[in-house]
Amino acid sequence: MYENIRLSDVYEDRREKAKELITKAGFPAPQMFSDYHDMINMPEIQAVIIAASWDTHIRIACEAMEAHKFVGMEVGGAYAIEDCWELVRTQERTGSQCMLLENCCYGRDELLVLNMVRQGLFGDVIHCSGGYRHDLRDEVSYGRENRHYRFRNYLHRNCENYPTHELGPIANVLNINRGNRMLSLVSVASKSAGLHEFLKKEKGSEYDATSMDFRQGDVVSTIIRCAGGETISLTLDTTLPRYYSRAFHVQGTKGMYEEENRSIFLDRPEDRKFDFDWKKRWGNVSEYYDQYDHPVWKQYLKDGVHKGHDGIDWLVFEDFFRAVREEKPAPIDVYDAAAWMSIAPLSEDSIATGLPVAIPDFTRGRWMTREPWTPFGGEV
Amino acid sequence: MYENIRLSDVYEDRREKAKELITKAGFPAPQMFSDYHDMINMPEIQAVIIAASWDTHIRIACEAMEAHKFVGMEVGGAYAIEDCWELVRTQERTGSQCMLLENCCYGRDELLVLNMVRQGLFGDVIHCSGGYRHDLRDEVSYGRENRHYRFRNYLHRNCENYPTHELGPIANVLNINRGNRMLSLVSVASKSAGLHEFLKKEKGSEYDATSMDFRQGDVVSTIIRCAGGETISLTLDTTLPRYYSRAFHVQGTKGMYEEENRSIFLDRPEDRKFDFDWKKRWGNVSEYYDQYDHPVWKQYLKDGVHKGHDGIDWLVFEDFFRAVREEKPAPIDVYDAAAWMSIAPLSEDSIATGLPVAIPDFTRGRWMTREPWTPFGGEV
Repeated sequence: MYENIRLSDVYEDRREKAKELITKAGFPAPQMFSDYHDMINMPEIQAVIIAASWDTHIRIACEAMEAHKFVGMEVGGAYAIEDCWELVRTQERTGSQCMLLENCCYGRDELLVLNMVRQGLFGDVIHCSGGYRHDLRDEVSYGRENRHYRFRNYLHRNCENYPTHELGPIANVLNINRGNRMLSLVSVASKSAGLHEFLKKEKGSEYDATSMDFRQGDVVSTIIRCAGGETISLTLDTTLPRYYSRAFHVQGTKGMYEEENRSIFLDRPEDRKFDFDWKKRWGNVSEYYDQYDHPVWKQYLKDGVHKGHDGIDWLVFEDFFRAVREEKPAPIDVYDAAAWMSIAPLSEDSIATGLPVAIPDFTRGRWMTREPWTPFGGEV
Repeated sequence: MYENIRLSDVYEDRREKAKELITKAGFPAPQMFSDYHDMINMPEIQAVIIAASWDTHIRIACEAMEAHKFVGMEVGGAYAIEDCWELVRTQERTGSQCMLLENCCYGRDELLVLNMVRQGLFGDVIHCSGGYRHDLRDEVSYGRENRHYRFRNYLHRNCENYPTHELGPIANVLNINRGNRMLSLVSVASKSAGLHEFLKKEKGSEYDATSMDFRQGDVVSTIIRCAGGETISLTLDTTLPRYYSRAFHVQGTKGMYEEENRSIFLDRPEDRKFDFDWKKRWGNVSEYYDQYDHPVWKQYLKDGVHKGHDGIDWLVFEDFFRAVREEKPAPIDVYDAAAWMSIAPLSEDSIATGLPVAIPDFTRGRWMTREPWTPFGGEV
């Protein structure tokens, strides 16, 4: 099925670049379009992958579902709760499938932890935290030159603009929309200083963007309260110098995982004796891989694939195409997409008003009976 | 002056134990009291150290200030904002000094970071976080047997009950009450499950406390907003299995510190190249000690003292007794004590109402002109 690739991009140079990548990989040159409307209804197209700007994801996804395509939607936050409802409504009305391509749900440690939680090793999970902690100053600052939509987002908005990388794996651990749900959130934004200082240093005071008033706070902290009494802390942190981290942290009554030093602590004497000297156990997650790697990762390593972002890109696309081929439900569906993406506009509201806000139940009650999430439909 | 020790404790066995410690250390046996009122007005007493239960700290501190003593008050949260005001009022009216004995302000990494921040290496500090992440299940659960007041606190209250260990060093970095101040906070508590599960396992279902309804959530997350636009995230995490951490994290426009892997990231090519591979730089804080250790720590290591809690107990008492001897202002004064301790009752209000709350300005405007904090009056 990879032979019938159609490609749309509003920029000619990007179309040409994509064509080059596709032909270099051994596929026929794709038919190309500058306006996706010209191809979205083509009967030979079975699946549509949307990797456009954040603000167009849901709109294009809905159009593609209307055209009865199986949709794969790149990650990003939503802009309005109405968009999240539109995504859900369109899926329910058309019966078309739409998957949020959240690659981080397929991370090795994220799936290891999910596997251990399901086996009860962490006990009752009480608190999780995560972040999108990635220095994007270069990408954001030169967004206009590079035609990257992040520039206008950071200039105009102030919110948890990219919540799904960290929230997706946490939602899976906490069975959000599947026996649990997110009830409310509160978000607080720091001042915005990182981009200004970066531009002043890199381009000088004369450069126009150096004196622009970027509304996006450098660090946005969010606390989410769940129906089961669990709490989730999220941190957006993309305009200050730092190393990359999703700061994944899962804490239960019997154990915990901490990404910042890649360790697992279980409630047993051999771990407790390092209480004040945990440095000696940093990186111990590797000791758990043999026994507790998720079956999906065991298989992946056995297959020896090793591609893109430590395998997570390969795995998320593999799960997507599996569902398309087998005509199965979207592995990460519109209810999860709507809930996770809704954090962006809800955090915007919370920051603007200084108040907590309620998180809608996009399943309208079905969260109480939906089955826990498993990658690959539980068939790996 | 150490020769004239007076000692009060409501429990006889504890008085005897203390006497033993004092005489073993080579001092004369102290005169002892079961009621501190009987000794607090003694003219030969110059300084009073309060290490009683949290709820009595401020009350005793105020009585001691009325008696013109130099007060050293152990840490803990307050119970009412009125108590924080009482502390400030009493100090201002009597002119007596009162120091909060926050040992963590004297931590090596905390002072290293303060030193680097003051030298501009982190740029404009935007966001800080910290936690009291310490498995106290044993101490809390058996609080009645061990006459520890934590038991009744965890049974009845739900708040950020112990904020100062992590907040103190952050407040120093952000110049809180000294050019900056905390404006508001919002706190969210997780459910309470850790103590119940611990007691069930340790003592069985028949043990009375196993079925008690501990109100204290296992994890309390708090976000504080400051006048300078900075944000502070605090986490109380004391009833789940874990290793000890104060999770100290300071993030500026030019650099950051992360306690979970004890590293410093500065905005320079040699650090940026490890963006996705920061594991290789874990523990690199030790590379900064030579050049950036705080003068207080340089002196301390040179003196070769090495006592109590990695030196921080020794340093905080040394600074206290220095101020007493030299009749100098309290090194950590009532304005800082009131502001830091107020987080406990304010978080209780926020958790109870689900809403953000304002943080009082205990300096009543003087925060705009007070000098930045330095240990040892800046004389080391």
